[in-house]
Amino acid sequence: MAKFYGIGTGPGDSSLLTIKAVETLKKIDILFTPEPKKGGESLALSIVKEYLPDGLEIRQRHFPMNFNGEEKLKAWEKIALEIEKEININNKDVGFITLGDPMIYSTYVYIMERLSEDVEVVTIPGISSFSNIASSNNFPLVMDTDALVVAPCTMDEEKLDNILQNYNCIVLMKVYRNFVDIINKLEKYGLIESSILVSNSSQEGEKIYKNLKEAGLEDKISYFSTILINKSYKNLNK
Amino acid sequence: MAKFYGIGTGPGDSSLLTIKAVETLKKIDILFTPEPKKGGESLALSIVKEYLPDGLEIRQRHFPMNFNGEEKLKAWEKIALEIEKEININNKDVGFITLGDPMIYSTYVYIMERLSEDVEVVTIPGISSFSNIASSNNFPLVMDTDALVVAPCTMDEEKLDNILQNYNCIVLMKVYRNFVDIINKLEKYGLIESSILVSNSSQEGEKIYKNLKEAGLEDKISYFSTILINKSYKNLNK
Repeated sequence: MAKFYGIGTGPGDSSLLTIKAVETLKKIDILFTPEPKKGGESLALSIVKEYLPDGLEIRQRHFPMNFNGEEKLKAWEKIALEIEKEININNKDVGFITLGDPMIYSTYVYIMERLSEDVEVVTIPGISSFSNIASSNNFPLVMDTDALVVAPCTMDEEKLDNILQNYNCIVLMKVYRNFVDIINKLEKYGLIESSILVSNSSQEGEKIYKNLKEAGLEDKISYFSTILINKSYKNLNK
Repeated sequence: MAKFYGIGTGPGDSSLLTIKAVETLKKIDILFTPEPKKGGESLALSIVKEYLPDGLEIRQRHFPMNFNGEEKLKAWEKIALEIEKEININNKDVGFITLGDPMIYSTYVYIMERLSEDVEVVTIPGISSFSNIASSNNFPLVMDTDALVVAPCTMDEEKLDNILQNYNCIVLMKVYRNFVDIINKLEKYGLIESSILVSNSSQEGEKIYKNLKEAGLEDKISYFSTILINKSYKNLNK
């Protein structure tokens, strides 16, 4: 029976793919990948490219990014149906690549949950961007009895304030939109010294800011920007 | 200049090593690994074994697990000094393997932070057990504007209750010690239907409990047991 393979590509550096991801890429018949807005090749595709067998069929599909739109739901439904048809009718093994880890803030889940129950799904984990940023900078994410909170800055502001005040170990995702507000918030709570910010982790144009005040002076910050906070490690390796 | 390489091995399955981890294992001169209590070979070592070059020098060292002991601090200090000497005096590239991800609840950090500042440290991330459990079970960890909280059950109980009540997406680590209390807590908060428990993820003797009440009937649960909770995905794939 043909299967559906969801494959985490990790954050950007091809050498952060797992052996299992590489082996899986070599046995599928068709590879689906999100299509970038500006055309060309998706970041996920560029990460796996060197491991793809010659002649593998690649289908880039558009995933609308608008928030509550019907358009988005319809696009997911259409892509899921296309994948299901290849598996159940044409007996093709289908892969789907997704940045970072497939189970952490990934559109992959919306496709997976739209497939009919008779499709066997095999998901292969990937290195998340925050895990790579921590390792690349020798920045301990969490130790001992502390909890780690991974929070998207698109969440309710009161809840975000609560997290910043009450937890020691925090990853802030999606800092792009309200970037200056977030830096001001970190300053207000005395967290500038316990934080680092990395844009485009392990990708081309990676930028590491060990001083977040400097980062706050940038006109624009990359969409792929993440802040790590560990209150137990002030000025660690800075 | 010789360097210190911290290498995340992932949760158990050797194919979950990254390409970068495998490449690094092939270029080091000495590999350090924690020594298991019962003697024999550590789990971390068994994961990487098939990728080690012939004749690589392996040094298993004992890491005491007692809580606030001086003994533990002394052991870390001694191992760090031994590693530092190999790097700075004997010019050897030294690797240190650690289960899961090196920056998430890993003893590796205690060695890393004891090395003198002139030792260059390169840390390579690994797949964490919770990330693998999520993917293996097609269990979405966190989506959209939700936060993900990774909490060790050794933490303050009031804080743990607060997390269980106020967050949708939770990973419970170190559930081993107060296992029955934790299952009772999940029942109290109506979380049994939104949870899965996995012991020995991707290792020999892996056990998956989609019904946590059944798990609660076990006499004993493995040390490597983790619970995933996602309140938005009741009965998902059960």
